[in-house]
Amino acid sequence: MIIVMKPGAAQSSIQAVIDSIEAKGLSAHLSKGEEVTIIGVIGDKSRLSTENLSVYKDVERIVPVTESYKLSNKKFHPEPTIVKVGNTQIGPGNLTIMAGPCAVETEEQLMCIAQNVKASGATILRGGAYKPRTSPYSFQGLEEEGLRYMQTASKETGLATICEVVSQDAIEAAVKYVDMIQIGARNMQNFILLREAGRSGMPVLLKRGLCATIDEWLNAAEYIMSEGNPDVVLCERGIRTYETATRNTLDLSAVAVMREKSHLPIIVDPSHSTGSYKYVPSMAKAAVACGADGLMIEVHNDPAHALSDGPQSLTFQHFEELTRELKPFCDIVGRSFQ
Amino acid sequence: MIIVMKPGAAQSSIQAVIDSIEAKGLSAHLSKGEEVTIIGVIGDKSRLSTENLSVYKDVERIVPVTESYKLSNKKFHPEPTIVKVGNTQIGPGNLTIMAGPCAVETEEQLMCIAQNVKASGATILRGGAYKPRTSPYSFQGLEEEGLRYMQTASKETGLATICEVVSQDAIEAAVKYVDMIQIGARNMQNFILLREAGRSGMPVLLKRGLCATIDEWLNAAEYIMSEGNPDVVLCERGIRTYETATRNTLDLSAVAVMREKSHLPIIVDPSHSTGSYKYVPSMAKAAVACGADGLMIEVHNDPAHALSDGPQSLTFQHFEELTRELKPFCDIVGRSFQ
Amino acid sequence: MIIVMKPGAAQSSIQAVIDSIEAKGLSAHLSKGEEVTIIGVIGDKSRLSTENLSVYKDVERIVPVTESYKLSNKKFHPEPTIVKVGNTQIGPGNLTIMAGPCAVETEEQLMCIAQNVKASGATILRGGAYKPRTSPYSFQGLEEEGLRYMQTASKETGLATICEVVSQDAIEAAVKYVDMIQIGARNMQNFILLREAGRSGMPVLLKRGLCATIDEWLNAAEYIMSEGNPDVVLCERGIRTYETATRNTLDLSAVAVMREKSHLPIIVDPSHSTGSYKYVPSMAKAAVACGADGLMIEVHNDPAHALSDGPQSLTFQHFEELTRELKPFCDIVGRSFQ
Amino acid sequence: MIIVMKPGAAQSSIQAVIDSIEAKGLSAHLSKGEEVTIIGVIGDKSRLSTENLSVYKDVERIVPVTESYKLSNKKFHPEPTIVKVGNTQIGPGNLTIMAGPCAVETEEQLMCIAQNVKASGATILRGGAYKPRTSPYSFQGLEEEGLRYMQTASKETGLATICEVVSQDAIEAAVKYVDMIQIGARNMQNFILLREAGRSGMPVLLKRGLCATIDEWLNAAEYIMSEGNPDVVLCERGIRTYETATRNTLDLSAVAVMREKSHLPIIVDPSHSTGSYKYVPSMAKAAVACGADGLMIEVHNDPAHALSDGPQSLTFQHFEELTRELKPFCDIVGRSFQ
Repeated sequence: MIIVMKPGAAQSSIQAVIDSIEAKGLSAHLSKGEEVTIIGVIGDKSRLSTENLSVYKDVERIVPVTESYKLSNKKFHPEPTIVKVGNTQIGPGNLTIMAGPCAVETEEQLMCIAQNVKASGATILRGGAYKPRTSPYSFQGLEEEGLRYMQTASKETGLATICEVVSQDAIEAAVKYVDMIQIGARNMQNFILLREAGRSGMPVLLKRGLCATIDEWLNAAEYIMSEGNPDVVLCERGIRTYETATRNTLDLSAVAVMREKSHLPIIVDPSHSTGSYKYVPSMAKAAVACGADGLMIEVHNDPAHALSDGPQSLTFQHFEELTRELKPFCDIVGRSFQ
Repeated sequence: MIIVMKPGAAQSSIQAVIDSIEAKGLSAHLSKGEEVTIIGVIGDKSRLSTENLSVYKDVERIVPVTESYKLSNKKFHPEPTIVKVGNTQIGPGNLTIMAGPCAVETEEQLMCIAQNVKASGATILRGGAYKPRTSPYSFQGLEEEGLRYMQTASKETGLATICEVVSQDAIEAAVKYVDMIQIGARNMQNFILLREAGRSGMPVLLKRGLCATIDEWLNAAEYIMSEGNPDVVLCERGIRTYETATRNTLDLSAVAVMREKSHLPIIVDPSHSTGSYKYVPSMAKAAVACGADGLMIEVHNDPAHALSDGPQSLTFQHFEELTRELKPFCDIVGRSFQ
Repeated sequence: MIIVMKPGAAQSSIQAVIDSIEAKGLSAHLSKGEEVTIIGVIGDKSRLSTENLSVYKDVERIVPVTESYKLSNKKFHPEPTIVKVGNTQIGPGNLTIMAGPCAVETEEQLMCIAQNVKASGATILRGGAYKPRTSPYSFQGLEEEGLRYMQTASKETGLATICEVVSQDAIEAAVKYVDMIQIGARNMQNFILLREAGRSGMPVLLKRGLCATIDEWLNAAEYIMSEGNPDVVLCERGIRTYETATRNTLDLSAVAVMREKSHLPIIVDPSHSTGSYKYVPSMAKAAVACGADGLMIEVHNDPAHALSDGPQSLTFQHFEELTRELKPFCDIVGRSFQ
Repeated sequence: MIIVMKPGAAQSSIQAVIDSIEAKGLSAHLSKGEEVTIIGVIGDKSRLSTENLSVYKDVERIVPVTESYKLSNKKFHPEPTIVKVGNTQIGPGNLTIMAGPCAVETEEQLMCIAQNVKASGATILRGGAYKPRTSPYSFQGLEEEGLRYMQTASKETGLATICEVVSQDAIEAAVKYVDMIQIGARNMQNFILLREAGRSGMPVLLKRGLCATIDEWLNAAEYIMSEGNPDVVLCERGIRTYETATRNTLDLSAVAVMREKSHLPIIVDPSHSTGSYKYVPSMAKAAVACGADGLMIEVHNDPAHALSDGPQSLTFQHFEELTRELKPFCDIVGRSFQ
């Protein structure tokens, strides 16, 4: 932590900051420039958590030097993490394709979709049983019944399964039926839910919040991991910007940034980010090209009548074409699926 | 709902849309322009919720015409709502000042702050007992113990009280000790929590999410109200933008927009939005001038040692000065406090 | 300038940075923490402008400590600047109201508007003669003819005048006819135009760019001032965010921030920021309450038929009501108009 | 254009809108729903440019149906445009790599870079002679001298050349020395410059503004094209968002959206968007994978001492590696360079 003093800061102001640092058993390192004085703090800065040095007299600003997340930080865990989900694993060498409907609607629908996405190369079946919807009057999901269909579909096809959870109750139910739980974008800073997900012992897919920074996202992962659960996979799904031509703006450079900052696997969701099936294939290819560990893609047997997010869902035929087109990209980047 | 067809849309494509609308018992109204054809839907559009017309052939886009929120919509409830909290009320004629520490730290601290903010004109004591913090290693609040201190402070001073809740457990506890519950920005789309808040029967302060649109905010209010709870107060607390000179960007025009769109009271939080005590007074005055029903302001006995958000907290002296300076503004806009 | 090294940076990497700093005749101040080493640079950092230390081995990041703008910086000019425009002045004690049509349309129109806005308290007449429009097919302004009408209106009413300029030609013409020139939001980083505005010797109103940070805005002012022109007035006019309920998001906290960072006067444009006449009065009041030095408001004799931006223009009656309502706010903040 | 009336709009209000439409020789098509009435306008809507229907009584909002850009619109020119630059061309089948220093510094430097980027596969040499810099005290470019070096480098290597222009003077100089001119992000809505670029008859690379929407970007292209110049190439270079881990946020979905909306070629600049050489290779690959027609990449002989944007520049070795790695991606998407 560095404290930058205002130009012309009084000696007494500088001393007050130093005293405060030393009173916590830390060392202060003074650097007097021509215009400004800066003070470096040496030692465990968490001891300063109850000091708000920025309100001290003549302090211009505080510059943090170290990140607050540790378990998710590549600096302390340089090797890439591999997360096992059912009989598949997410990480180097694999391109994990999670596919399925936005919402589980009926058992027949889910089974039909499961068989089709498996045939095209998906290894994890996605399907929403608890749907966070903007309006209370929209379809909210089949809840536990939907989870049971997921389990059945898994038994029939051998696909691993993932479901979004929105509450402790949903986690408790999901643990019984599926292989991985998902924290959605709107819950990325629902810290209670993050802790519960950590305690569940399940692999967790952590979607980026709509306006979450990279640092906030890794701190959210830290909530899960600090409960003793190392199996976190990140999912970039678009951020909110001023542009309205797509539903959100897919931030693919987040994949490259995460490779620098974290050891956790990261996958990309081109469906929710773009909001339109037309843009899914090109963004899926871009995600593979820039090094993503996987994709989450919405596929529906009848997008025109999907109960949720139909406009962004691929048909079986589009999905089959896409996975076929993805294969040569996988070859180049040294990944495979199926 | 209006369906805009692509230029040169085939007659068969147009007919398919019309058929789909009529199959749901609605009427389609065709308007053929020189370049494009548009189709208006007449009737209860919720019947179309399982039709994703945007994926139909030759459809350019769908334009919604009516809002999905009804109970929070001024169109259906033109008179401003008044929300009673303890022995005070939020709405026309009043300027409700909620003040107190970001986090409840000790009973003595809270009592001292309560007495001071009351003396300066606050009618509701705020204090966080459950703190949603970016890092899991930051102070997370005293939880139920903090709520008890709030109740004691209320008994001693007569102030009404408000606490943020982050889970069903927190709501159940808060119901016993405080007069109003707050849904924080990070939980604005935690729909499970919104429904629970609705069922609690308590007045609810609903903070705007960091990147929530006006429409999403009113839909979040709708979640609470659709559970039979009409006592919702909105709180503008800054949105996330590219500007970093302030912690967030206070969107005061949201106050004016809400007056057009909703009958619910709206207050402004200049502390969290700016992130610096220096900017709180000017933004508080601006909020009163543009018609806000109240303010939520962080006040601390010793900002330099606050356990949370010290840099944005006012001292007692600053708070007293601010409320004194606010009085003439209140006179102009026809509101009063104390 | 502070250089933060990576954890575990090699001694040779640290020495390379130090050598590079000292080779420029500056001093390096080393601060070795438990995790990371930081290096402070002492001396005139502009000598380092050809060194990109961030690409040196083991460098984590560079933290600038001093601002690049000097002339517009309050640190070096603590007293507020007063800018004279015609027979009026912008700065402490005054609330300068600039009013008029978005675009000058005809001489009669302009004269009629000039007389009306003067009667209601405006001291500067605004009117666009060169209109930057999103589409090339929209009305682009009367150019020099429009400027002449401005001059005539000024002579008749005694109002000072301001016009936006978009090119060197426009500046040369404006110098002959009006009292102040305006650099619009889309040209805030048209550095050629900024320099020309600086050389014109005219008072300059510098609107904030749609996505300009406070620092970029002050650097743009620096371009004008570094040509020897001290008469710069800033104008907050809304920034681009994800919210679409208003055309842009008025960032009123920018007024408060500018008071901390700069000595230049700052006014607020509630018309372009909100995009709707309905929201102009409340935002105008908020601007006065938070300390703005003035307002720029669009007024039109017939908004329904304005050639540009009619939806945000006030009628004469609305403008008269607004200025009447602004007076008590002016009394409180110690400003007056007329 | 569709006019949505407020619920319960008076018949007289509806009639006033209809009268206003018909008075311009257009037809109004009325569609009365259960809650609201909508009015479709049939005919050439540009006749309504002087009517601001949104300020009419009981009008809720106006929904535009057709885009204001025509020449750049794929609806009217479905075939992809190919733009010739020197002896190369930008469009289907090619992956055009523009590479070179951010700023031209010396003749020797430029020649050295030109030879190296050519050897690695670039076909167009980029180099800034007029540099728009945030601070007036930063290096502003060699101007015409820099252009001459570009010409010399072109003669020696056979590379085509591109330079950013910032003023009419710069365009006049550039026409003499280089093969393509660039409008930078900060000038994307400098409409005077766009028209001059249109009149120059030179191929124009139009960078997206930092906060420009897709529609604004295509309208900027329309300014150039409406002067009779069809040779416009778009360049996505990152947009401004709240995320600070990268300099800007590269919006790769803009490539996919442009393929739907326009026939113009589009290239991607991974250097300016990310701001760090570390992220350039992965974003370059992603750009090729999602269908971009080319790349603009900064390459410098000595990034640690570049006069501008060193941190994002690739070394010769990194650039050579990148182009080698790009080749298999090009094979898949059916493009080639060299």
